[in-house]
Amino acid sequence: MRASARRPTANAAGLRPPAAGRLALGLDIGGSHMAAGLVDASGRVHGWRRRALDAACHPDRAMETAAALLDEVLAAHPEQASQVVGVGMGLPGMVEVTGGRLVFAPNLRWTDYPAADRLAGLTGLAVVADNDARLATLAEALFGAARGCSDVLGVIIGTGIGGGIILDGRLFRGPGGTAGEIGHLTLDLDGPACRCGNRGCLETLVAGPAIAAAGRAALARAVQEDRPGPLRSLCEDDPAAVTAAAVSAAAAAGDQAAREILARAGTWLGIALAGCCNLINPRLVVVGGGVAEAGELLLGPARCEIARRTMSVPRAMVDVVTGELGAMAGVIGAGALVLGDY
Amino acid sequence: MRASARRPTANAAGLRPPAAGRLALGLDIGGSHMAAGLVDASGRVHGWRRRALDAACHPDRAMETAAALLDEVLAAHPEQASQVVGVGMGLPGMVEVTGGRLVFAPNLRWTDYPAADRLAGLTGLAVVADNDARLATLAEALFGAARGCSDVLGVIIGTGIGGGIILDGRLFRGPGGTAGEIGHLTLDLDGPACRCGNRGCLETLVAGPAIAAAGRAALARAVQEDRPGPLRSLCEDDPAAVTAAAVSAAAAAGDQAAREILARAGTWLGIALAGCCNLINPRLVVVGGGVAEAGELLLGPARCEIARRTMSVPRAMVDVVTGELGAMAGVIGAGALVLGDY
Repeated sequence: MRASARRPTANAAGLRPPAAGRLALGLDIGGSHMAAGLVDASGRVHGWRRRALDAACHPDRAMETAAALLDEVLAAHPEQASQVVGVGMGLPGMVEVTGGRLVFAPNLRWTDYPAADRLAGLTGLAVVADNDARLATLAEALFGAARGCSDVLGVIIGTGIGGGIILDGRLFRGPGGTAGEIGHLTLDLDGPACRCGNRGCLETLVAGPAIAAAGRAALARAVQEDRPGPLRSLCEDDPAAVTAAAVSAAAAAGDQAAREILARAGTWLGIALAGCCNLINPRLVVVGGGVAEAGELLLGPARCEIARRTMSVPRAMVDVVTGELGAMAGVIGAGALVLGDY
Repeated sequence: MRASARRPTANAAGLRPPAAGRLALGLDIGGSHMAAGLVDASGRVHGWRRRALDAACHPDRAMETAAALLDEVLAAHPEQASQVVGVGMGLPGMVEVTGGRLVFAPNLRWTDYPAADRLAGLTGLAVVADNDARLATLAEALFGAARGCSDVLGVIIGTGIGGGIILDGRLFRGPGGTAGEIGHLTLDLDGPACRCGNRGCLETLVAGPAIAAAGRAALARAVQEDRPGPLRSLCEDDPAAVTAAAVSAAAAAGDQAAREILARAGTWLGIALAGCCNLINPRLVVVGGGVAEAGELLLGPARCEIARRTMSVPRAMVDVVTGELGAMAGVIGAGALVLGDY
């Protein structure tokens, strides 16, 4: 009675790149900036440009700025305009993907806004929208650090923290389109209040504003104790100059307090990532966004926690790397959303 | 230049049930018991039976016991033996699914054991193996509380805590076959040591042994303070009689300390589930295993934490329910693994 019970298999390749020949406008709206460019099927960006975005501005104003930015991009590349098949837009919050509606953006305080329809009305172009961190992850998986990888967790750390998930070679959105919100995992039960309404979210501990706030406290201590150091000299003792980027630069220059801030953030990041590795067993974690530019000072401590807190099989197979596409990732992913089938 | 940029969609139905007409032997090896039965394509179990399993026993002995149990099941149903196409086996740990090898079972201390090959040698039947909690989730998704649902997180709470994930209507294993290990999410950074090597895992706070230990402490306090109550009378003041089931029964009978134990466990469970809802956005969380029989005394507090700690969209769409298949779920899922394509 020996029969051949089928053995389940779960092999998958990475995402399929878009077919060549077409172009899309990629637009990436973040918590403090927007960026846009023409994206081709190889993930190259033409005419990339960037504008500051006031977090307090009305979304209609932001869409007008975005439309003007896209016009500029097209005006600089008139010969390619006929190849443009549409606009992909990344938004920093929960996006109802099928309708391109922004449900809630904690760091912009936009709620229930028909972003894709509004931008389509202003530009005369077809617009699709998705979560910005998911699109940055898509870009890294198609053209960057996660090329060819079937199971990827992207973590994008900037003003907030977002994420994207690729499973079995497919971009995974979840039935509500919100999968990947790693920034709102509770880590510190009674920790700082988060703009999402919860407390102690990863975002409150590791995103740019948290690192900047810790940097300002370190600066104040150093000033008070009359201790010189890279953080003080880089910021010229001005608390307003202490950004996450300044903390990273000071840490790279050997500032001990700045290094401790990044190490603490990396530890929290690693605890969250260990949970994710146990839960979804990715082959690769790609950490992107401005804060990721701290590199090993952040990722080293994160890897320690992953090693401590992940089960043996998922631990042995996961790598943790920084993204390769930097600030371009969001625009590239937004363009790719239009050019491919993801 | 209006073009029709494709809007991504993410609709999926539930798992497809197995085709009718065949039978499989389902075998569920847990942390303290094994169970087996003949499973048909409708998820019905014929000749279900169960044996205690000594956690300290050698896996070869356990496989011999399992083979004898399967023989008993077949002997009780001789007329159906010719329809049996193989054995599905659930194992309480990380399973290398393609080879049926158990990599590590924390609560049995089995390591790197060729379980499927060994059982196939003993029975002369084809054997496939997978994680026990994943198979229980599969069963609930095919025939139980998650029937027809495309995006499910199963959490099985017994001697340990395991999980299973169904995404976009497909059982998700992850590239290493270990996806779903929700029991090893770190919740309490410096919490109790876990058998996985980490500290403060969900399992150390919410699984049966944690609830029993808290129950024994409550019993000792009640005895010392000479306070009568359901826990004392149910266990006749005997610490050895305090199991998780006894704590649940005492709580159901109104024992305040027992209720607090379950509420605390439910709170931890809810914190972990909130993280999972943010990360993978399930439509349904099914809580199964023996500890789930505590019902609302456990799930009520869990829902509170989910409401506090999950973003609005995933929060609004998720339901948290107990499993419908009870102690049968593991056997049914193991059989279904052979009968269908999952």
